[in-house]
Amino acid sequence: MTERKLGRGVAIVGAGMSRFGTFPGRASRDLFVEAFQAMRESVDKGLDPRDIQIMYLGNYSSDLFEGQGHTAPLMADWVGLTPVPALRVEDACASGGVALRQGILAVASGLYDIVLVGGVEKMSDLPTERVTDTLATAGDVLYEIPAGFTFPGFYAAMATAYMDRYGATPESLMAVGRKNHENGALNPKAQFSLTIADIMAKKIAGAEKRGRPVPTWRDEMEFLHDHQANPIISWPLRLFDCSPITDGAAAVLLVAADLARQFTDAPIHIIGSGQASDVALHDRPDPTVIRAAERASHQAYEMAGIKPTDVKLAEVHDCFTIAEILASEDLGFFERGQGYIAAEEGLTRRNGPRPINTSGGLKAKGHPVGASGVAQAVEIWHQLRGEAGARQVSGTPDLALSHNVGGTGQTCVVHIYERR
Amino acid sequence: MTERKLGRGVAIVGAGMSRFGTFPGRASRDLFVEAFQAMRESVDKGLDPRDIQIMYLGNYSSDLFEGQGHTAPLMADWVGLTPVPALRVEDACASGGVALRQGILAVASGLYDIVLVGGVEKMSDLPTERVTDTLATAGDVLYEIPAGFTFPGFYAAMATAYMDRYGATPESLMAVGRKNHENGALNPKAQFSLTIADIMAKKIAGAEKRGRPVPTWRDEMEFLHDHQANPIISWPLRLFDCSPITDGAAAVLLVAADLARQFTDAPIHIIGSGQASDVALHDRPDPTVIRAAERASHQAYEMAGIKPTDVKLAEVHDCFTIAEILASEDLGFFERGQGYIAAEEGLTRRNGPRPINTSGGLKAKGHPVGASGVAQAVEIWHQLRGEAGARQVSGTPDLALSHNVGGTGQTCVVHIYERR
Repeated sequence: MTERKLGRGVAIVGAGMSRFGTFPGRASRDLFVEAFQAMRESVDKGLDPRDIQIMYLGNYSSDLFEGQGHTAPLMADWVGLTPVPALRVEDACASGGVALRQGILAVASGLYDIVLVGGVEKMSDLPTERVTDTLATAGDVLYEIPAGFTFPGFYAAMATAYMDRYGATPESLMAVGRKNHENGALNPKAQFSLTIADIMAKKIAGAEKRGRPVPTWRDEMEFLHDHQANPIISWPLRLFDCSPITDGAAAVLLVAADLARQFTDAPIHIIGSGQASDVALHDRPDPTVIRAAERASHQAYEMAGIKPTDVKLAEVHDCFTIAEILASEDLGFFERGQGYIAAEEGLTRRNGPRPINTSGGLKAKGHPVGASGVAQAVEIWHQLRGEAGARQVSGTPDLALSHNVGGTGQTCVVHIYERR
Repeated sequence: MTERKLGRGVAIVGAGMSRFGTFPGRASRDLFVEAFQAMRESVDKGLDPRDIQIMYLGNYSSDLFEGQGHTAPLMADWVGLTPVPALRVEDACASGGVALRQGILAVASGLYDIVLVGGVEKMSDLPTERVTDTLATAGDVLYEIPAGFTFPGFYAAMATAYMDRYGATPESLMAVGRKNHENGALNPKAQFSLTIADIMAKKIAGAEKRGRPVPTWRDEMEFLHDHQANPIISWPLRLFDCSPITDGAAAVLLVAADLARQFTDAPIHIIGSGQASDVALHDRPDPTVIRAAERASHQAYEMAGIKPTDVKLAEVHDCFTIAEILASEDLGFFERGQGYIAAEEGLTRRNGPRPINTSGGLKAKGHPVGASGVAQAVEIWHQLRGEAGARQVSGTPDLALSHNVGGTGQTCVVHIYERR
């Protein structure tokens, strides 16, 4: 199918997120209220919640994480939206981005003008092993999990294949983690507000204080190569190559483009959207390519009428550092086999020519799985409006892209945003 | 909001379901393939699956039932749809109906012309108690489940309130179960293909064969009052007031109305759709009314431009017998407090003036929760086309309604269908 234009333009007129982190004693509904309030406060000309007509919620598995199903109407109730329709959309870690896309279709359908898109995940109530098992259900449970795979293993397999083919090294991966921690350190809502150097300094100070042997790391790379400071999770992926377990929520308000000025003089238009699916990883011919990302971005570029080189800023799905490198190639930012070189050379740093994950990405901002796709839109909202504070990209970009992956790439959804 | 018309007409041009029942050793993907093939065979002029552009999947909790998340792209793969977008939609037991509604919005958006809507649930792998616990997660897990509620308890509370207010009796409920088993006995895909009288006769014959004391039930009512044959689950609800644990899948093919004749000369148009949410049961002022159903049906009637009395046939959400009685009032078929009298008087029987659940309903056809809302549309497809076999309503109705409830009524979605 040739991708078509939306019948009706759609704009974001408000966006907000909760603090990301681990919050014992706070349920997903508490996090969602926090995100909703942040979104509400961001609407320049004010929002009466009673004007919201439908709610889409991205959530991966409140079932397994919290023992709570039928989450959407509960969330709607807690932010005062009852009786509007509320539904949950699920595509693993792409649930948030897919919910955003469904919200866009709802406006385009002509049936709704004002749509809330939320995402939420409360992950930290389970012990780490059970979180890992829960995330593994996003693979193919009949064919892949019995073979011993969990998500670090899946992405480690992609990383080794990529390294073997193109000559990348574990240091290439570390370049991504370092950059994203640098960005996250400037994001007050991020789970990790420290750079790798900060973390290193803190560990050294802690050892001195407790009278323990003081590590002799002199720089970030030395720290990242230390087996105790940065243990191997699934080679070549170490701790600082993996996104964390996170509790968090995010929300954006979509409206029909012709209504946007009622809410703000600086709306962010969504000009492209694409989504594709793929078979599970064990069935794919090439683990160094996420075909669903290639296809979804192709659709989005075509709808928006732009080329990859037009994109000024991207939030991509760096659940593991290798995933960001693959994304930077799948999206057409760099040629195949060049993504890791771009990362090493700093081209994707905040003030490089092609900024990626200024928010800190999933790696440092945190990855509450069903919320991540929506939180990407929140970062883009801030950056395109010039309101990203200490991490604002200079020159205030006018065109941005988000890329949200489910599982090992069985789902990918891409959106393109424009400030006009 | 005044409910609006869809920007673009939508029609069903194919519909099918798997056999409903309990199928050890068959995963949800196997059931979904069976439903897809039945749907495909129903398309009069043929379907090339490569023409399908997006897939919506209703599924409540493959997470808890099968330990498998990210189910949508897996299902898409197994029916050969990769790489089209595939997403799961969840609103507890209304997941199927809500997926149908999202499929309609996708066509109305102008972005898609040919949409697959599926529903699937594989429930029987877990022991019964764990199925009950899993379903209970559709209540409010923080506020209701710790008080001891499971779903039979929720609906028993509604039933006792209703009986207290209007004078209905357990026999009123039994009238619903008897009728739905009568209908299910004529449905070759139903989980229970026996009337209550058949079941009674079978039990008598079994006792005789095994030389055990032979029961002296003389009619269905005597059987239904027997504490051993029909034990109390949660008073006043007995075994034959409760829908069963079911494995099953269903699929319908939606297309833009202007393309329908490419697929069949007898499309079924969807002329109304409504959805609403509500707070959890413990927070509602009146347990004898499902307000989300009132509101969703009001929206659907308004969109279709019809009145409740225009509806010739309805598939309603009889997860428990009391739910069908409440539905018949919430939908405006009968006045408040009259639904049970209508059931007792046989007005809702297959050849009565207001047939309800000719398929056997959730009670006898079975209730694979995420598939049920889609399976309702399959029954209506057959009935409106005059292809329902032994259970065909005489005169071949031309206007029908489906009503699909999530949880205790936190979600309800209603659709109206027309043969033109």
